[in-house]
Amino acid sequence: MPLMKSWVESANAPNHPFPLNNLPYGVFSTEGTDPRPGVAIGDMILDMEAAEAEGVVTLSEYPLFDVPFWNEVMEEGPAVWAALRARLTSLLAEGSAERDRVEPLLVPMADADLHMPFAVSEYTDFYAGRHHATNVGTMFRGAENALPPNWLHIPIGYNGRASSVVVSGTDIRRPWGQLKSPDHDLPAFLPSRRFDIELEMGAIVGMHSDGPVTVQEADTMIFGYVLLNDWSARDIQAWEYQPLGPFQAKATATSISPWIVTKAALEPFRVNAPEREFELLDHLKDVGPMLYDIKLAVDMAPEGKAATTIARTNYAQLYYSAAQQLAHHSSSGCPMSVGDLLGSGTISGPTKPERGSLLELSWGGKEPLTLDTGEQRSFIEDGDTLTLKGFAEGDGYRIGFGDCTGTVLPALDDPYKR
Amino acid sequence: MPLMKSWVESANAPNHPFPLNNLPYGVFSTEGTDPRPGVAIGDMILDMEAAEAEGVVTLSEYPLFDVPFWNEVMEEGPAVWAALRARLTSLLAEGSAERDRVEPLLVPMADADLHMPFAVSEYTDFYAGRHHATNVGTMFRGAENALPPNWLHIPIGYNGRASSVVVSGTDIRRPWGQLKSPDHDLPAFLPSRRFDIELEMGAIVGMHSDGPVTVQEADTMIFGYVLLNDWSARDIQAWEYQPLGPFQAKATATSISPWIVTKAALEPFRVNAPEREFELLDHLKDVGPMLYDIKLAVDMAPEGKAATTIARTNYAQLYYSAAQQLAHHSSSGCPMSVGDLLGSGTISGPTKPERGSLLELSWGGKEPLTLDTGEQRSFIEDGDTLTLKGFAEGDGYRIGFGDCTGTVLPALDDPYKR
Repeated sequence: MPLMKSWVESANAPNHPFPLNNLPYGVFSTEGTDPRPGVAIGDMILDMEAAEAEGVVTLSEYPLFDVPFWNEVMEEGPAVWAALRARLTSLLAEGSAERDRVEPLLVPMADADLHMPFAVSEYTDFYAGRHHATNVGTMFRGAENALPPNWLHIPIGYNGRASSVVVSGTDIRRPWGQLKSPDHDLPAFLPSRRFDIELEMGAIVGMHSDGPVTVQEADTMIFGYVLLNDWSARDIQAWEYQPLGPFQAKATATSISPWIVTKAALEPFRVNAPEREFELLDHLKDVGPMLYDIKLAVDMAPEGKAATTIARTNYAQLYYSAAQQLAHHSSSGCPMSVGDLLGSGTISGPTKPERGSLLELSWGGKEPLTLDTGEQRSFIEDGDTLTLKGFAEGDGYRIGFGDCTGTVLPALDDPYKR
Repeated sequence: MPLMKSWVESANAPNHPFPLNNLPYGVFSTEGTDPRPGVAIGDMILDMEAAEAEGVVTLSEYPLFDVPFWNEVMEEGPAVWAALRARLTSLLAEGSAERDRVEPLLVPMADADLHMPFAVSEYTDFYAGRHHATNVGTMFRGAENALPPNWLHIPIGYNGRASSVVVSGTDIRRPWGQLKSPDHDLPAFLPSRRFDIELEMGAIVGMHSDGPVTVQEADTMIFGYVLLNDWSARDIQAWEYQPLGPFQAKATATSISPWIVTKAALEPFRVNAPEREFELLDHLKDVGPMLYDIKLAVDMAPEGKAATTIARTNYAQLYYSAAQQLAHHSSSGCPMSVGDLLGSGTISGPTKPERGSLLELSWGGKEPLTLDTGEQRSFIEDGDTLTLKGFAEGDGYRIGFGDCTGTVLPALDDPYKR
């Protein structure tokens, strides 16, 4: 499919992240106005609350866009999702007869603040990148035992903390935590010294389920995708994670990009999962191409300095798709909810510059990175800005996600001082 | 404090779980009516929606009781919690001048269905019982390495799944899951064969926080307590839990008792935590007695048969209080929300009949229990009803929790058949 042209001229610019083919969903506000749903088109945002109020978009008998999140639209289900996309495409396409009605509803993106695009019901983080799991396992347990015995049979995951999910641009305060260094007998409560990123993508569940769902049903339930950075305190994690898994190490914040790129926009980019070393059990079997060819990168910028791209990889490097993760998640009968967020797990490729965390890039701190500006980094230092970027490349157009960025602030001197 | 007498005569009966000293909060409905908040007093429920509508209880300028959960009351904060308890005590006390206004607002508990008393924001399960952790650790790693090195320094916990929390009386469907038996090379997807209970108590967070809170602040934030059964599929858990902790093993269901017993009602029963083997770090230190003397028991009844009490223990057997768990939970800056539920972890005492799970009672299936009715049990069999019971014993009265019960239904023949 080639570039679909819009009468919003900026959307037709080469390599623009938000052409008519994309139409991602966010929540925005302008000075003095309340956050409301919007759709990105080129350098503009279509104000969906206004579009609904004006009768330009009507999806149901009751309003869906008078709230600062997309959950109400998700609740309507896939037929309405498709109807909305079709309507938006028609309204914004070159030659649209309704241009005059729509043009007054556009807001320049430069004037907008972006907010969380949806209300997160629950957040689950998976561990579905084979190269990442192998790298971390090698560091912790040696190359022979790198992958746990279950890894090639289950999309391993753990429940995270929905309350800690924030939108791109939110500053991240370096956490305190209980740490035990190898040269001390006892732990201490200190600021984390090994604060890290995890380059992930998040899948947003758009439908409820009450019992086990198949991989095909799970794919139908997914509303869209975002970039996701699961900030991780490696020193807190190392001390706390046995035997019940990561907890406070992952609870400070998880950042997501501000635009939900719909599953529909990503359809042309579906690719197959890698070859299976063991045949998957029936309820997890591939039922078609469910990964996507999405180019991903991580930029790191010391305070006041230019950014260096420290990693480039691809979403297709995952071993398990979001649909397989969701199928596994529901397999015990666990009810799934509209607004659940599934982190993919860190996405690393097979070579060193494709690694999606500083833990892997600096090999546990043993091989510090040198940035283009000359600084060395093993983990994040105060003032560093970390930015995830991603896009799918079509025939003369891109499906962009918008940056997922955050600046790390110094730990508080005393976190209990009010 | 002795028994406080009520004009609701049944509340004054010896050993009644709901005397005037208690006043626990639930959500109920009667035939043809919608669920609404209520307060248990003896064999009756005070209809709080009606009490507010009639002007008998007025806590704010806007209604708090026209919703089927207690979260709105929690949002008001501790001053309103105290005002509500004082008002209810005055209305229901023997000799109340307002008896005539209140009596028409009482509904017989026998006519009521009980529902979830609050909307669960997020659910966290801890592992704060030393005897339980020691028993499980001994089974899995041997007596020498029973307690992980962090255990005596951190209240170890993991995030659970809020969507799976159900009210007492909800049937529990035996889950399917990925299992690997020791005599097979590969896993299979099968119904769980080692389905278990965990005898716990749940603490309900009633206030928001955005950064680390002290143990004292955490205690203030707790609204009340319930009994909690964290149903656990041991065979799913054994295969999945490395390296990121329990996931689908704990996601089928967690049952809670239907009445929130307030922190205020439990005040007379505060007891100190056990002696500390290592001094706790400052941010986790005991700041007074924050456990409670609450007697707990587990009953098991095969289908159509009488129940056998299979365990008796006490909440005071925990090593870490809910306030310490909450302080730890917030220590990384993790935002905490009104309606968060914190499971205590399984509560076992030092001797065999005090063990709070079948895993411990049957020592991993090696020492099956014999019930009073003659049946043997290592884990739960289809049709078994498991019931947690609990009360604090005062001077001539009890603070009861109401049973936390559930019957295990057979696994579906094919969980994917619709």
